[in-house]
Amino acid sequence: MLETTPDGTTDPTIHPFDRSTQVIIADGRWRGITSDDYFGFFGPFGGVTAATMLRAILLQPERIGDPLSVTVNFCAPVGGGGFDLDLRLIKATRSTQHWMVELMQNGDVAAFMTAMFATRRPSWSHHTATMPKAPPVDRVEPLSGEIVAPWTQQYRFAFVEGHPRFDARLDAPASTFSKMWLSDATPRPIDFLSLLSMSDSFFARIFHALGTLVPIGTVSMTTTFHADAADLAAENATAVLGVADARIFHKSFGDQTGELWSPGGRLLVTTSQVVYFQA
Amino acid sequence: MLETTPDGTTDPTIHPFDRSTQVIIADGRWRGITSDDYFGFFGPFGGVTAATMLRAILLQPERIGDPLSVTVNFCAPVGGGGFDLDLRLIKATRSTQHWMVELMQNGDVAAFMTAMFATRRPSWSHHTATMPKAPPVDRVEPLSGEIVAPWTQQYRFAFVEGHPRFDARLDAPASTFSKMWLSDATPRPIDFLSLLSMSDSFFARIFHALGTLVPIGTVSMTTTFHADAADLAAENATAVLGVADARIFHKSFGDQTGELWSPGGRLLVTTSQVVYFQA
Repeated sequence: MLETTPDGTTDPTIHPFDRSTQVIIADGRWRGITSDDYFGFFGPFGGVTAATMLRAILLQPERIGDPLSVTVNFCAPVGGGGFDLDLRLIKATRSTQHWMVELMQNGDVAAFMTAMFATRRPSWSHHTATMPKAPPVDRVEPLSGEIVAPWTQQYRFAFVEGHPRFDARLDAPASTFSKMWLSDATPRPIDFLSLLSMSDSFFARIFHALGTLVPIGTVSMTTTFHADAADLAAENATAVLGVADARIFHKSFGDQTGELWSPGGRLLVTTSQVVYFQA
Repeated sequence: MLETTPDGTTDPTIHPFDRSTQVIIADGRWRGITSDDYFGFFGPFGGVTAATMLRAILLQPERIGDPLSVTVNFCAPVGGGGFDLDLRLIKATRSTQHWMVELMQNGDVAAFMTAMFATRRPSWSHHTATMPKAPPVDRVEPLSGEIVAPWTQQYRFAFVEGHPRFDARLDAPASTFSKMWLSDATPRPIDFLSLLSMSDSFFARIFHALGTLVPIGTVSMTTTFHADAADLAAENATAVLGVADARIFHKSFGDQTGELWSPGGRLLVTTSQVVYFQA
């Protein structure tokens, strides 16, 4: 039932990210399908799963405003194939909405999202944080071939600091800080969907700490958008500068915090997540 | 129907925080009641509202593990008086659970929480972050009388850095960073409930930036616990060192990030929130 969609799945001019995050209504229910293009080692890349859920909200006719804060919880492995998306508008005021989306596979919840939307009004404005320093995006060499999960091929990772090493034998934990330019491998204007996906695109901090790959999984991620649709349109960016760090790894869970900046120096996103690990 | 509870509401030995976050079953439904002791200028202090919701989950017989990550969204003003708490176990695995709680007043959702619980297993452990420097808690003078909202009287705020000024006329925005020792005014061992409430106890960053009070409201807060119940018991703390900062205020919303540390130097909580403001 997913062969044809309102967006036209078979159209080769559609960006892989848009193709992979599309949703349709089938039998009165919102549906999506996992994408081989954005698969990881054990399942679909969580960022694209989250973006698909957010797209479903954006398509609701009663939706108002722009996403402000989104929390997505990954409860169970999402398997390859189709899934249903059950949407609910929990509460609406004149200028805000709170949505919930549950991603169902085989009759069970595999992931869910709560998302606050707001129509943002002009106000006093103040940027406390300043953009981390970095050479221009086209002056930084991207990774090539170091990482083999399919989803990583869909992005251009150009590390400025904290270049990942997956085959090191470290005597002591290394820094968990990294700074990189991030863009879609096929250029695509930055929007809420790509920002949400990019929020989950930092390599797990424990890989940086240990210098090797271990089994990990994001269990909960919260992303806050500090720009509305008009701000994003004004930035007209296809790349973001991302910084990420971790503060603690303890009893099988670690944290990660991140920021995504436009090349023009605007803080677009702050994000935090909890990551399960085996080490 | 709230005069008597399983905990014994009228018992004067019950700590005000426990009295104010109690929940009961009435007519087959979980209920709580707002507390005058923890009221703010316009409604109940959000931290206590959140703690009440979390307590309801902790009391569920099928609950396993400890809270790991909690997101609470405040959708509408909570009025003084009683409220219903509708609980749902969204998904459970052998070692994790995802819960949702909706706080209902007058048939409408005023706040909701999603909470991930986990039974945490031993693992590699690594603290990247180090505790911010501060004099011992008993060497720092607490605030007294500067702040008049009832809920603030229930806490002891001892500022080490970023002392709040609510009557300044600043030519330029001041620092939004602050560091303080925080404890219950009546000493009480730190647990998940008090940590969640304390996550919301930082004064709004915009007060620090502007040096004055403006109308604000937390709209979404995510708190991650980096200690389990055994870790908290081992700390045996009644105070935490809290640091908080903000990165941006834009189009009526600002961010806040915070950390809560035990006196023994353990990172207990990281938290972030989105705050609505009028300025």
